[in-house]
Amino acid sequence: MTRIAIFQMSAAIDAEARPRRIIDAMKEAAAGGARLLIAPELALSGYGRGEVLTRVCEQADGAWAQTLGAAAAEHDISVIAGFPEDAGGVCHISALIIDRAAPHAPQIYRKGCLYGAYERSLFTAAGPSTVIVRLEGLNVGCLICYDVEFPENVRRLAVACADLIAVPTALPKDTPSEFIARHTIRARAFESQVFIAYADNADSDEGFTYQGLSSIAAPDGAVLAAAGETGDALIYADVDPAAYAASRDANPYLEDAARQGLV
Amino acid sequence: MTRIAIFQMSAAIDAEARPRRIIDAMKEAAAGGARLLIAPELALSGYGRGEVLTRVCEQADGAWAQTLGAAAAEHDISVIAGFPEDAGGVCHISALIIDRAAPHAPQIYRKGCLYGAYERSLFTAAGPSTVIVRLEGLNVGCLICYDVEFPENVRRLAVACADLIAVPTALPKDTPSEFIARHTIRARAFESQVFIAYADNADSDEGFTYQGLSSIAAPDGAVLAAAGETGDALIYADVDPAAYAASRDANPYLEDAARQGLV
Repeated sequence: MTRIAIFQMSAAIDAEARPRRIIDAMKEAAAGGARLLIAPELALSGYGRGEVLTRVCEQADGAWAQTLGAAAAEHDISVIAGFPEDAGGVCHISALIIDRAAPHAPQIYRKGCLYGAYERSLFTAAGPSTVIVRLEGLNVGCLICYDVEFPENVRRLAVACADLIAVPTALPKDTPSEFIARHTIRARAFESQVFIAYADNADSDEGFTYQGLSSIAAPDGAVLAAAGETGDALIYADVDPAAYAASRDANPYLEDAARQGLV
Repeated sequence: MTRIAIFQMSAAIDAEARPRRIIDAMKEAAAGGARLLIAPELALSGYGRGEVLTRVCEQADGAWAQTLGAAAAEHDISVIAGFPEDAGGVCHISALIIDRAAPHAPQIYRKGCLYGAYERSLFTAAGPSTVIVRLEGLNVGCLICYDVEFPENVRRLAVACADLIAVPTALPKDTPSEFIARHTIRARAFESQVFIAYADNADSDEGFTYQGLSSIAAPDGAVLAAAGETGDALIYADVDPAAYAASRDANPYLEDAARQGLV
């Protein structure tokens, strides 16, 4: 069993203060018993800053990775946090994945599918990829925001034996986004019998107002922890795949999807 | 715009009375303005009767098809209803699809994936198939019960331009089944931007107690109509794909799934 935490992060936090706020959340989550903290999409830079993001983007092993790596070692907690990545001429919306046991060897996931004109004007989509990192005794897959809305992406990670899918998110607030936060996330967890940690922004920046409603969903569809619609929040759940054997038996979706040739 | 109706059917209805009850529901639904009635899985025979079902099964153009075809013509309403199909040595869990405009040319959908030991002891799975019938100005796809729990099946029909997916169902009542009725159905409609009509059994027969909670979900995830957990119920919704253009624009899942090569 591994305790994880989500840091739902207010978009009102200044860009310069963001790395420090993530480190403070790591420290607080570690004190709360968590061994993995998940922060939102573009948490290190802010999401709604437009083309500024293409100038502040950093390489995967750049200053942000070094800063979070040092904090992971100091506070003894692994971390997944979104950042704009400079990948040599193109920018991706990426997530740093830092194992406290190997804090100077960051791994990354790059967002597969960009949402809408804003993201496509700034970033390059990486296409579907299967990034699963062994962290804290769990096979942790990663998707970013819009990626998780596609059942195929969650299925692919579940078939590859992910226990938990970490989803840094920046969900603009409007009617369909509330549906995603309240229903889609639970349905994704249930239909592929995995845990999903959905870490959203909240409040407003110069570009958008965000939905909040970060949550951690279990393989049986239960919501283990949920944040409100506004403000910073640190929420926790104990992730124990072995405790859901009965759910997997009653809902053998991966086995029956394979039986039908769907996966 | 086409008004459709679901007949949620009590499992307590005797086998002999079932075709008549479906016809009565067709008549009532037609009087209520509906042009398509959807009845549950194995509605014509009952679901929980065990190996009796392998003896009462009928061919796709057998007596049940003729009876419902005559009723479709008489009451001027198309119908989709589940039955055990004798397919020459094997039995399928199938649905009759009868167009009131061609009532003597029934079409069928055969359940792709059977759920659990009970179904597999009696029936043969047909594997995934894409059955879409033009009915009442709509492209109507069909799945049966467990089939709709797999996002791949709904996606396949949506990509093939289904507007509405009719789902005759027999969902045994327990905790995960309530999740399916309350969350999975809405998530399926939203993620593939289709209407879903989920027509369940209710109450008990000699084999099972059923969940009820039949519903009609819209492409934006809204529940247009819902039945309770018990008893017969006739519920209606007006299905108008053109009214959901804004939802498809905000949630371009089919377009972006193709863009990523996921479908």
